[in-house]
Amino acid sequence: MANGNGVKVVTIGGGSSYTPELVEGLILRHDRLPVSELVLVDVPEGEEKLETVGALARRMVEHAGVPMRVATTLDRRRALEGADFVTTQIRVGRLPARILDERIPLSHGIMGQETNGAGGMFKAFRTIPVILGFVRDIQELCPDAWMVNFSNPSGMIEEAVLTQTDFQRAIGLCNVPVNMRAGIAAIMGVGEDRLELRLQGVNHFVFATDVLVDGRSVMDEAVERYATIADDETLAMNNFAAKPYSPEFIRGIRAIPCPYHDYYFHTAEQLDEFRTGNVRGEVVGRLEETLFATYRDVRLDVKPPELAQRGGARYSDAACDLLASIHSGAGDIQYVDVRNRGCIADLPYDSAVEVACRITADGAEPLATGRLNPRIAGPVHMIKGFERLVVEAAVTGDRDLAVAALAQNPLCPTESTSVAVVDELLRAHGEYLPQFSR
Amino acid sequence: MANGNGVKVVTIGGGSSYTPELVEGLILRHDRLPVSELVLVDVPEGEEKLETVGALARRMVEHAGVPMRVATTLDRRRALEGADFVTTQIRVGRLPARILDERIPLSHGIMGQETNGAGGMFKAFRTIPVILGFVRDIQELCPDAWMVNFSNPSGMIEEAVLTQTDFQRAIGLCNVPVNMRAGIAAIMGVGEDRLELRLQGVNHFVFATDVLVDGRSVMDEAVERYATIADDETLAMNNFAAKPYSPEFIRGIRAIPCPYHDYYFHTAEQLDEFRTGNVRGEVVGRLEETLFATYRDVRLDVKPPELAQRGGARYSDAACDLLASIHSGAGDIQYVDVRNRGCIADLPYDSAVEVACRITADGAEPLATGRLNPRIAGPVHMIKGFERLVVEAAVTGDRDLAVAALAQNPLCPTESTSVAVVDELLRAHGEYLPQFSR
Amino acid sequence: MANGNGVKVVTIGGGSSYTPELVEGLILRHDRLPVSELVLVDVPEGEEKLETVGALARRMVEHAGVPMRVATTLDRRRALEGADFVTTQIRVGRLPARILDERIPLSHGIMGQETNGAGGMFKAFRTIPVILGFVRDIQELCPDAWMVNFSNPSGMIEEAVLTQTDFQRAIGLCNVPVNMRAGIAAIMGVGEDRLELRLQGVNHFVFATDVLVDGRSVMDEAVERYATIADDETLAMNNFAAKPYSPEFIRGIRAIPCPYHDYYFHTAEQLDEFRTGNVRGEVVGRLEETLFATYRDVRLDVKPPELAQRGGARYSDAACDLLASIHSGAGDIQYVDVRNRGCIADLPYDSAVEVACRITADGAEPLATGRLNPRIAGPVHMIKGFERLVVEAAVTGDRDLAVAALAQNPLCPTESTSVAVVDELLRAHGEYLPQFSR
Amino acid sequence: MANGNGVKVVTIGGGSSYTPELVEGLILRHDRLPVSELVLVDVPEGEEKLETVGALARRMVEHAGVPMRVATTLDRRRALEGADFVTTQIRVGRLPARILDERIPLSHGIMGQETNGAGGMFKAFRTIPVILGFVRDIQELCPDAWMVNFSNPSGMIEEAVLTQTDFQRAIGLCNVPVNMRAGIAAIMGVGEDRLELRLQGVNHFVFATDVLVDGRSVMDEAVERYATIADDETLAMNNFAAKPYSPEFIRGIRAIPCPYHDYYFHTAEQLDEFRTGNVRGEVVGRLEETLFATYRDVRLDVKPPELAQRGGARYSDAACDLLASIHSGAGDIQYVDVRNRGCIADLPYDSAVEVACRITADGAEPLATGRLNPRIAGPVHMIKGFERLVVEAAVTGDRDLAVAALAQNPLCPTESTSVAVVDELLRAHGEYLPQFSR
Repeated sequence: MANGNGVKVVTIGGGSSYTPELVEGLILRHDRLPVSELVLVDVPEGEEKLETVGALARRMVEHAGVPMRVATTLDRRRALEGADFVTTQIRVGRLPARILDERIPLSHGIMGQETNGAGGMFKAFRTIPVILGFVRDIQELCPDAWMVNFSNPSGMIEEAVLTQTDFQRAIGLCNVPVNMRAGIAAIMGVGEDRLELRLQGVNHFVFATDVLVDGRSVMDEAVERYATIADDETLAMNNFAAKPYSPEFIRGIRAIPCPYHDYYFHTAEQLDEFRTGNVRGEVVGRLEETLFATYRDVRLDVKPPELAQRGGARYSDAACDLLASIHSGAGDIQYVDVRNRGCIADLPYDSAVEVACRITADGAEPLATGRLNPRIAGPVHMIKGFERLVVEAAVTGDRDLAVAALAQNPLCPTESTSVAVVDELLRAHGEYLPQFSR
Repeated sequence: MANGNGVKVVTIGGGSSYTPELVEGLILRHDRLPVSELVLVDVPEGEEKLETVGALARRMVEHAGVPMRVATTLDRRRALEGADFVTTQIRVGRLPARILDERIPLSHGIMGQETNGAGGMFKAFRTIPVILGFVRDIQELCPDAWMVNFSNPSGMIEEAVLTQTDFQRAIGLCNVPVNMRAGIAAIMGVGEDRLELRLQGVNHFVFATDVLVDGRSVMDEAVERYATIADDETLAMNNFAAKPYSPEFIRGIRAIPCPYHDYYFHTAEQLDEFRTGNVRGEVVGRLEETLFATYRDVRLDVKPPELAQRGGARYSDAACDLLASIHSGAGDIQYVDVRNRGCIADLPYDSAVEVACRITADGAEPLATGRLNPRIAGPVHMIKGFERLVVEAAVTGDRDLAVAALAQNPLCPTESTSVAVVDELLRAHGEYLPQFSR
Repeated sequence: MANGNGVKVVTIGGGSSYTPELVEGLILRHDRLPVSELVLVDVPEGEEKLETVGALARRMVEHAGVPMRVATTLDRRRALEGADFVTTQIRVGRLPARILDERIPLSHGIMGQETNGAGGMFKAFRTIPVILGFVRDIQELCPDAWMVNFSNPSGMIEEAVLTQTDFQRAIGLCNVPVNMRAGIAAIMGVGEDRLELRLQGVNHFVFATDVLVDGRSVMDEAVERYATIADDETLAMNNFAAKPYSPEFIRGIRAIPCPYHDYYFHTAEQLDEFRTGNVRGEVVGRLEETLFATYRDVRLDVKPPELAQRGGARYSDAACDLLASIHSGAGDIQYVDVRNRGCIADLPYDSAVEVACRITADGAEPLATGRLNPRIAGPVHMIKGFERLVVEAAVTGDRDLAVAALAQNPLCPTESTSVAVVDELLRAHGEYLPQFSR
Repeated sequence: MANGNGVKVVTIGGGSSYTPELVEGLILRHDRLPVSELVLVDVPEGEEKLETVGALARRMVEHAGVPMRVATTLDRRRALEGADFVTTQIRVGRLPARILDERIPLSHGIMGQETNGAGGMFKAFRTIPVILGFVRDIQELCPDAWMVNFSNPSGMIEEAVLTQTDFQRAIGLCNVPVNMRAGIAAIMGVGEDRLELRLQGVNHFVFATDVLVDGRSVMDEAVERYATIADDETLAMNNFAAKPYSPEFIRGIRAIPCPYHDYYFHTAEQLDEFRTGNVRGEVVGRLEETLFATYRDVRLDVKPPELAQRGGARYSDAACDLLASIHSGAGDIQYVDVRNRGCIADLPYDSAVEVACRITADGAEPLATGRLNPRIAGPVHMIKGFERLVVEAAVTGDRDLAVAALAQNPLCPTESTSVAVVDELLRAHGEYLPQFSR
């Protein structure tokens, strides 16, 4: 994996406000993952942010006294040469597109969200073709590199790479599982490192179906504690869920949902909240302005605390632990998005799933979980079915398929709304969706 | 199958207003299905209706000049002895229970309907234990008989029989597929007998995934015609759908939905309609009063035309054709609910599915349909998952599971509504749900 | 399917001694399958035989007074234009190659046979690339035509077409199932037309797993009668099996084997027979000489009775019934080789299987048979595994894979024998196996 | 798992000559697996051996200075109370039965061997009912204990426990995988602890389908080295295989076979060897006499070196490492026999497979391996099919099924031999096979 002179990491979308998280993570793990070169890549529109982030990254590295060179470039193909790891964290259309993804569905009375419902679908439409281009470049320029994708919707992007290319070294990543582990560890009153999860599901629609402490299942107790958690506890835990669930529901499914399940099981409440406040894209926009002002301060040479509010808690840990364990062949358990291959026996064999994997130098090897817990099987199948249609529509530009996909998403109460929302979003995002105007 | 002296049919729930449909069907097919004895069975509370219907049936038979003896009885076990076919058409709790199934969910802002959502779930809770009792009796008293169930929710009842018993001769039946065939034949402008469907799905959530005319697929054209059907045409076709679909949606799924899909893809509109009118149970109640008044007229000796309005169009055909083809080993194609056994390759092996089957003396043998059309896979899996939870809750009386099941049904927008609706319906139907008070 | 002016059938390998069977079959079914043009195609080396057969075919047609034009040609691509059906019955390397397929393995102490073991494997190696070429031509020149392949090994050829091309209109055919039906009908003492089989397996390794008379299973009795059949009865039935099975074995598997199972379950006896007599290729060679002498007699204008000895009993019926039912969309049950698609739930989804199918204008639609009867599952999986490796080796020319395939065939007792036999056959057939010398 | 006062291990068949292996293993791991009580259980016929072994075990423990109490008893049910682990290593009928398992098939010209072919089948018939009795006792007396079975045929016994009981804490164990790892490590020239295998298959028919060094696949090189290994190297490696394979075969299957594959891929050679020498049961008989003479020497207080010849190399390591990792929840990778649950996607879901598992306090959790490597799929399916029939016959005592099972095993060349061998073995072992005389 590593070149003679240390590990080379290329981060596409390097101008993201998240990058200092990543840089901090690499600094902290330099012994296990000796990165000698970090190349931040972005597009011309993002050049200013890229340089701001790059300069901060260099100050952080210098402050830490770690021998890691940080470069910035707009030349993606040149950057890829010799890469050991390529991380991708892009936002095609940037925050204005996200705001449209949220506002337009809302104006039709349905949820739009960065990764769920109409918003997630259109983010997938914009992002998948771009990521597939990255894969082609990687296969040509650095075929032995691992691609680790953080861009949302991470699960559908992994699904696209797995089903539309023959590239075998792509892993999808999300901070949801590590936050779930942290939250459940807090509920159980044990240290995170003693606790393991078993997951079934897909990215942003994943359930903990088993909880192990010191290698022994404590699921019955975890379900009961989670079922009866108090409101304030939930909120304290990285927005584990916006609103606690009824105990009956949690006992009924015998599984612990992820935060994004809120959109599906508390649809009405979520919609009310969205209607009355700012959508997330607008909030994030203001946060980012503040963050970049901070980043420009040349005295800043560590990750600023304000970044925590941005929402990517533990992304750094999730990402850098993955890279470090692949690099060292650690054999530890992490939670990532990979090809199913029977590990959830009744989901499609070649689809992306989010599960507990053993991480070695050959990547992420899932633990077999058997068939889906029958108490969550229906919704998981439903979302996987939706994802597969979205991927096909993203690649073919088939508008009818986009309508059919959204209409069968539980967030869309009637198919005529799907037609209206799809049409309006197609018009709004036209410049980023050439596949739909062919 | 047949005893020396002709075929014996036992109809449990024989006092139903539908029974004259069945009697007419048997009369018309007497050459292919020589029924010598029809025993109508009912419970003591239904005795008066049973006698009314029995008397009408005898007049119909006499008028037709067919040598079929019609008996009525409250002694179910005695009736079963020597039966060749047992048909079941029961309504535990009768129409008042149905009205509660519809009104209570509606009061919480969600659909309740005889076979879908909270209403269907509670009808299943009331009916499944009773039907499982019938199966035990049949296995003891007439183990070679075929049980053909028309009671709703027909799919979940079939699922329960298949997964909770080892009885192998139960077939579920519904008039939806034959009405779909009639409607599609009308759209295509061909006679029904030239048209065959291929179905994928479950009862009341079934899609036509192929349409054959004279054994050749005309699916592309059928999809296009159905996609662009005019409003009035839809209405003319046995309420094929309450409201036509957007062409994009139909083209997108490349399948033809069944009427009950309206509840899922036109949820908002259906809810509006329900809110502003009488619920179906109330309408049916008035229809039944009128019907029974008619039935009591001793001059009536044919099926009265008013019965058509009752909603069971073609039930008679569906049911009697099935019995006739089993009796004669006809080898024709009919649409029934049977054990999957791989005919829809990605649904559970032992679950009930509604598919095109070849009917022989050994029952219904499904044609293999391959994996689910990916464009409808998510919703079909979703409903099958729901059904399986409902069956488990019906048998175990697990209230948490009931809450979890309803909360994941797309008709329920938030899990706290599920808790409220389940609790209120449990209270309302308590006398019929002893399994939940253990 | 049919052109305005009647059906056009193209027979590749038309100079085969079997062709008069086919011609007779078409003549007899002219009302249901109005063939207006039969084009017999062959390669230059076979021109003389082609003309002999063509002339006989014309005399037969004239004698029958049927308006079917018979043409002969060496120009395959021209012949294909406008075809409705393309039947293929080729023998690459002709009988001398077959004799090598049989003699070389025998010299190493193992069975070689036209479709089984080393012989079948090498026939597949020679034939599959040629058939895949036909498929390319058909897709270009007559994409709506049905290809019906009789060439052996029919199952592996179907497997190759299904897995190596995207052509969807190829059906494999064999006379084994119709002969099994005839034999079992004789054992049961009923007319063939009242009896249906349910099959599980692959071509030449297929079991009857159910027997229906008038649509009702009589499997228990059929197993018992077959288990206790007398020697002479077996022989009388189209060599149903060379040697009766032990009753215990038949009762144990609860299935009725096909004649070719003899090679696997009576390996020792078969080997002894082969060792002491002429191999089949030699016998057939002499039969063919006699046959062609007869065919050349210009007074002959019907199928000569000697042809029956040739071995293809009922091929004519199997083939022509298939064409007729596709043409008319008959909806009857026939036994052919098609894509599995879950009809045998635990065999690979895309593999070829030999099963009972309903024949319509859209081809052959299998009846779902559930999972493999566990009592035959191991051997059926074994042979399917072998077939898949043979197809891959046939396409890639991978000698190691050929060795591995043969070594795991139950007919090969030690892997070093596989190396020796594969090497010797590769040398012997070199001119027909260019893929292995790349 | 552990009781307050340390771990209690019960070893059924404690009088086995292998027991000192186990005792040594427990002594060496006392820090990780603090066994406070080891109870050796045996049947009355084995009392003398039991006491001999028990006395030696006590001397070994005393010599090592480890606080582990060693008890011996004939009262199995009392011994089980409070057990944390129950290991089973029984031989119903003892060595005389094994000699019959080997000699009788050989007299009919086929292999009989302790775990393969007719011998393995009859050992399964004798052992499975006895083990199922142990399971019932464990479920009653110490339901939280783990049962670890070493008795042969280990895979079929695991299959029986998994499919015939609802006990969830049974793990099958064999020393073959650890010996394969050692052998392959030697071939690759790396330490064993740096090397991991991925396995696909069943006990005694398992292939290494991937080899990892430091977490990175080196399969290409491992295959090539194994393919070209010299004769003497093979022999040096714990009889890795009696005879090296042809390079073509190993390259063709792209997998590394286990030693027992010799019986299938070198059948002829193995048979020759068996015919000319003593069968294994006879050899072992003499070895055991010598061993027990040594055991009786009261000065002996360590495992005697002669035991190594007995054949169970590394059994001690395999067994005690498993117990230790379960006890401590280690999370390391070991190779054991467990329920498949999709980890080999195309084998039956509930069957036993031998695969790489992560060992925690909840037992063995398999890593997903995807579908079977197609190059070995046929034979693995074949043997799994055989195993399932053997288990069914062992439980039902169905002689016809026994005949059918053996006749389809590749080691049996003709079904009449199966009848003869089954009948003779049934007679010979009658006293141990009551289920077959019902």
